[in-house]
Amino acid sequence: MALGVDYARQDCSLARTLEIVGERWTMLILRDCFFGVRRFTDLHQHLDVSRAVLTDRLAGLVEAGLLVRVPHGRRDEYELTDKGLDLWPALQALTHWGEVHEAPRGPRRIFSHATCGADLDGAGGCPSCRLVPSPRDIEMRPGPGVTPAPRPNAVSVALRSRRRMVQPLRG
Amino acid sequence: MALGVDYARQDCSLARTLEIVGERWTMLILRDCFFGVRRFTDLHQHLDVSRAVLTDRLAGLVEAGLLVRVPHGRRDEYELTDKGLDLWPALQALTHWGEVHEAPRGPRRIFSHATCGADLDGAGGCPSCRLVPSPRDIEMRPGPGVTPAPRPNAVSVALRSRRRMVQPLRG
Repeated sequence: MALGVDYARQDCSLARTLEIVGERWTMLILRDCFFGVRRFTDLHQHLDVSRAVLTDRLAGLVEAGLLVRVPHGRRDEYELTDKGLDLWPALQALTHWGEVHEAPRGPRRIFSHATCGADLDGAGGCPSCRLVPSPRDIEMRPGPGVTPAPRPNAVSVALRSRRRMVQPLRG
Repeated sequence: MALGVDYARQDCSLARTLEIVGERWTMLILRDCFFGVRRFTDLHQHLDVSRAVLTDRLAGLVEAGLLVRVPHGRRDEYELTDKGLDLWPALQALTHWGEVHEAPRGPRRIFSHATCGADLDGAGGCPSCRLVPSPRDIEMRPGPGVTPAPRPNAVSVALRSRRRMVQPLRG
């Protein structure tokens, strides 16, 4: 496993998960993929991470089967696989914890159920439809805790508008 | 923040969460705390991590308010605070992803609702009572995917029996 962090003696599925997604930056790369970012250049500008680290993490995520690299026009794009999409509840829960405990100005992003428009609860569920929508059925918009001015890159600017998750965002 | 990983330019509550719990070993230390491990020595033996790293991560978790250090007899113990306990849904979701995608022999641990005995679903909910139990109301037991022989330390051995989460486990 290219991403390997050596938790080999930990007989635990949390340890196995962290071997794949526990490296620095990996979760934030996946977050961007859920937000619809697909191109290396867009990830690089939005994440403000070195090209070497981004290249390494993307290769690991492809090898582990969370992303697939697909040709699109003159350049390749990275798409979440079903295995990658299955990680949404974990990202949602980690994000919610930060919104509750580390966001003094209120939530930075608000997620809603695209079908009915209701804002999701802290467990990622739709209180109106009483179901947990899949990421493709979620809309996101900035909340009161977002910084006033977006950084000057295409992804940061696009994320200032309401948009559907997973749907390709091409800067 | 002692645990700081520099995601400072990421205006995102996931990034803030990862600054606190995203360092190598931190999540596995918290997992052990949820399992009831409270002593430095027990954490050290069970996690097979260096004393220096463990000391650093525990100090960071205390500073960030997820653990509190309390005197107990001749030595101190580490207890989850409410802020720490709030992280359970994220740990549960990460663990469940590993159970689904990285546990070919089946789940390593099975979680059930202590009140009614029903096994929890993949989202951590009790299908019988239709609620999401808090960690203190969850029992855990080894599943078919666990390695046949536990490692020779008190925590690994204790975790081979059915036990209530969070309740102090003193090796």
